Amino acid sequence: MRTIDLQELQRLERFKRANLVNSISGFKPANLIGTINSKGQTNLALFSSVVHLGADPALIGFIQRPVGVSGDTYRNIIENGYYTINQVSTEIVERAHYTSAKFDPEVSEFSACQLTEEYAEGFIAPFVKESPVKMGLKFVEEIFIKHNNTRLIIGAIQLIQLEEGLLAEDGNILLDKANIISVSGLETYYHPAKIAQFPYAKADQLPPFN
Amino acid sequence: MRTIDLQELQRLERFKRANLVNSISGFKPANLIGTINSKGQTNLALFSSVVHLGADPALIGFIQRPVGVSGDTYRNIIENGYYTINQVSTEIVERAHYTSAKFDPEVSEFSACQLTEEYAEGFIAPFVKESPVKMGLKFVEEIFIKHNNTRLIIGAIQLIQLEEGLLAEDGNILLDKANIISVSGLETYYHPAKIAQFPYAKADQLPPFN
Repeated sequence: MRTIDLQELQRLERFKRANLVNSISGFKPANLIGTINSKGQTNLALFSSVVHLGADPALIGFIQRPVGVSGDTYRNIIENGYYTINQVSTEIVERAHYTSAKFDPEVSEFSACQLTEEYAEGFIAPFVKESPVKMGLKFVEEIFIKHNNTRLIIGAIQLIQLEEGLLAEDGNILLDKANIISVSGLETYYHPAKIAQFPYAKADQLPPFN
Repeated sequence: MRTIDLQELQRLERFKRANLVNSISGFKPANLIGTINSKGQTNLALFSSVVHLGADPALIGFIQRPVGVSGDTYRNIIENGYYTINQVSTEIVERAHYTSAKFDPEVSEFSACQLTEEYAEGFIAPFVKESPVKMGLKFVEEIFIKHNNTRLIIGAIQLIQLEEGLLAEDGNILLDKANIISVSGLETYYHPAKIAQFPYAKADQLPPFN
């Protein structure tokens, strides 16, 4: 077993530590967040920190890094209150990755990375046409995390869009059928294949654990 | 395209809505959180809401559901300030799933689900011996989310333990080599296979996007 204590962790070279700490939490979801500002300029950015907060009300969170020179996603959400979260499929994984480049302020990542803006009636923020699983959200609250100047951004689901055939009878979305990917660290992408589905766990009905 | 608006979402049968909203955010990490109370009683619980907050300082968050009859993880963390987060591999995925059953208060999920407690010198909370990728954390802060009575629990990494051969030269953990799994919804498990690794994205070095 390789043990890394706090002292060794703090002494690690900066990028090595970033890779280690970004991969220690496991496989992460990869989501494109689409926003627009009051002048109609769109923005698209890749996040791996989207997290389920609750089903009723249907709330989704994501972690916004310290807002400095970049931070268009955050500013646009605060400005008009709506945004989209779009799953990344194998088909668009490379284009999604490159939305993380620093483009000039007047360049939209949609056009730079050849992804298509799509709008739903009555919803101001842009969806990613190529994404098979997406949702529109209304900004609810931001919670500032003082320890590292990040923010938990909370949104309420207003609208869900799925390609036909992806919604199972029990409500689950067939993410594998949609070729949705996951990410580890900052740059490595994975295609998850289904290996098991277990029933609701009951203490008096445990399997033999072979 | 199948569209579900807010009205339809709110009218969905409870379990169907839970499945839909639990799978809309994409593939999630699956982590076993190990804790102990002041009487020495251990607890182990499966979470799919662990999220990376930052690399320097190395902070990890997870979402704690409303604390009621259950909530031993939360109470133990508040009580003694330390906990472990253990990645789930294909080898222990079934045992990990069943830690979510409601056991009697005096029963530890470790013994009920045939997982082995392991302790690191000077660290009070129990690790899962069978997990190939794990960390020990010190509780830093809890942030209450008033909209649904959940909490963001923030911890600082104190200790990392990895099976030999899993730490790449660049600091990334080889999660696929460790057979780490991901989860969709509440009960479906996936084995991610690597499909791509892209360089740090630069706006003036975009690929042709074929």
